[in-house]
Amino acid sequence: MTSALTLGAIRASVGLKLDRLLSAVVSGDNLLERMASYHLATGGKRLRAVIAPWVCANLGGDPADALAFGVGLELIHNGTLIHDDVQDGDEWRRGEPALWRKWGVAQAINVGDAMYFWGLEAVAQGPNGALAVGHVSRAVVGTITGQVMEFQLRPSAAEQLEPTLMAWVNTATAKTGALFGACVACGVIAAGEVEAEALVAAQELGEAIGLVFQVQDDFLDLVGDKGRERAGTDLKEGKLSFPVAWCYQNAAPDLSSRLQVIVDTPRAETTDAMVDEGLVVLEDSGAIEATADWLRNMRDSIGDQRYAATLPGIVDRILRPVAHRL
Amino acid sequence: MTSALTLGAIRASVGLKLDRLLSAVVSGDNLLERMASYHLATGGKRLRAVIAPWVCANLGGDPADALAFGVGLELIHNGTLIHDDVQDGDEWRRGEPALWRKWGVAQAINVGDAMYFWGLEAVAQGPNGALAVGHVSRAVVGTITGQVMEFQLRPSAAEQLEPTLMAWVNTATAKTGALFGACVACGVIAAGEVEAEALVAAQELGEAIGLVFQVQDDFLDLVGDKGRERAGTDLKEGKLSFPVAWCYQNAAPDLSSRLQVIVDTPRAETTDAMVDEGLVVLEDSGAIEATADWLRNMRDSIGDQRYAATLPGIVDRILRPVAHRL
Repeated sequence: MTSALTLGAIRASVGLKLDRLLSAVVSGDNLLERMASYHLATGGKRLRAVIAPWVCANLGGDPADALAFGVGLELIHNGTLIHDDVQDGDEWRRGEPALWRKWGVAQAINVGDAMYFWGLEAVAQGPNGALAVGHVSRAVVGTITGQVMEFQLRPSAAEQLEPTLMAWVNTATAKTGALFGACVACGVIAAGEVEAEALVAAQELGEAIGLVFQVQDDFLDLVGDKGRERAGTDLKEGKLSFPVAWCYQNAAPDLSSRLQVIVDTPRAETTDAMVDEGLVVLEDSGAIEATADWLRNMRDSIGDQRYAATLPGIVDRILRPVAHRL
Repeated sequence: MTSALTLGAIRASVGLKLDRLLSAVVSGDNLLERMASYHLATGGKRLRAVIAPWVCANLGGDPADALAFGVGLELIHNGTLIHDDVQDGDEWRRGEPALWRKWGVAQAINVGDAMYFWGLEAVAQGPNGALAVGHVSRAVVGTITGQVMEFQLRPSAAEQLEPTLMAWVNTATAKTGALFGACVACGVIAAGEVEAEALVAAQELGEAIGLVFQVQDDFLDLVGDKGRERAGTDLKEGKLSFPVAWCYQNAAPDLSSRLQVIVDTPRAETTDAMVDEGLVVLEDSGAIEATADWLRNMRDSIGDQRYAATLPGIVDRILRPVAHRL
């Protein structure tokens, strides 16, 4: 596959069409469609939309056969974001007020719900639609399972999970990876490869990519500029991240227990000095270097996976914001 | 169709199997499945589960072909109930604490979400799965549209809808009718009738049945025993119902404006005397008799619809709790 289409090339080929199909789903003027349209207009990279056509094209298929899958997966992804903002009380999404802040929690639940059904309706229209709906549905149950586990990893959670590195990896693989996996799998289905073995390989590749995406996001919060006020916002918010879970598991007890106190302190009570101290603990314990190592290792090994050549350069692109530290 | 299967007969034939299939979906021991299992164990009549097999059998098909549809539709229905309880702040569901009260709002959103994807995964496994997923998805978007409108009918709503009888009927047809429609349509699909015209007729029959169900429920709150403390609970809760919307539209201005004050008074401030006064207004304005007339009329006319004979006795059964007033 020497002449594999790049992300830029597939975007040039199907990006506009995907945008038009997405807009068409929510083009009506009832309140439900206007709310959904507001959310979609906040933007996003539309990465879930483009993966299936991209994979399909690089397997020799017609990317047009995967457009319905791309549209469906992008809609489902946006449904999870709308519900996520409600669940976390996050007030902003891509620089705009989160949907629940404009129309309330009840309506935001409705819009997320509708995104799911619009999404699966689209998926059902693709080639081998019933097979694709089954695969996507199982993957999204994985996403939701990851979301359930994320709440179990919080300090005050009922039925709390121990915040080990393994628990973090399982949660992130489910929450972020499962839907990427469905995107790759749908591209494979659109190209006519429908054996169980092919779908498992596609799902695993997408899950690995999703996991890299999540670890990169955690790493960026510590070492780069995420467009937030300062480094360490996740520490302030009490989020368990890859570096924090690594530290809990591998650092000397005094360092890891001090970090745990900082992470578990409620957001409003976490001072900037505490965040700075947490960053020092992560540096001194080796957690930051271990995270960089893990990312380098994934970057070098993902290329060996089946179907990796159908998404040329995707890992480098995901890692671009933190490339200066790798 | 002289020997059409009754509801009792189809339940005897497939009820146990449906229960077993439903339980199997949530039989795992992770928190997501345990929460979902808790909700399903609260019971319910499983009416959405049995309609598709019932219709299929009475069209000469094998009800076993419609089991996946029945399971999927019952799961989706229960997902809407879980989210509905969150949205309304309802603390009880079938006599047990609502899921959000036991595990919190965020986890309840997760469980409802998962019900949707388990549900459509099941639907995709039925005959003509992709067609069925498309039909069901569109119908559930209708359900959600009705839910959006219900919030727009509330006194303090943003983008409020005028509480006319037409607005109420449109809302109830969408919110309650659309999913019943999908149940009938899936039974028709399972029996091999897949032309657009057949699906439209099936959807319309289900929507009419759902509407009767909702008007009956409103009527029962005024004239019967719903297992709540007293008649008129909906008036206390400020719910727009068929009789209330009828009164707004048809009663003398002094009566209808007095009723509106009672309905719009916040629940905590609505006294029993106000509820009693509201009941008198509904009686004196003719709203209660008009509702009874409407129900009698629907009972007599629904039987003329295509596919009505595939659900023998369903309207009488729905009207049984209020039969003494018809």
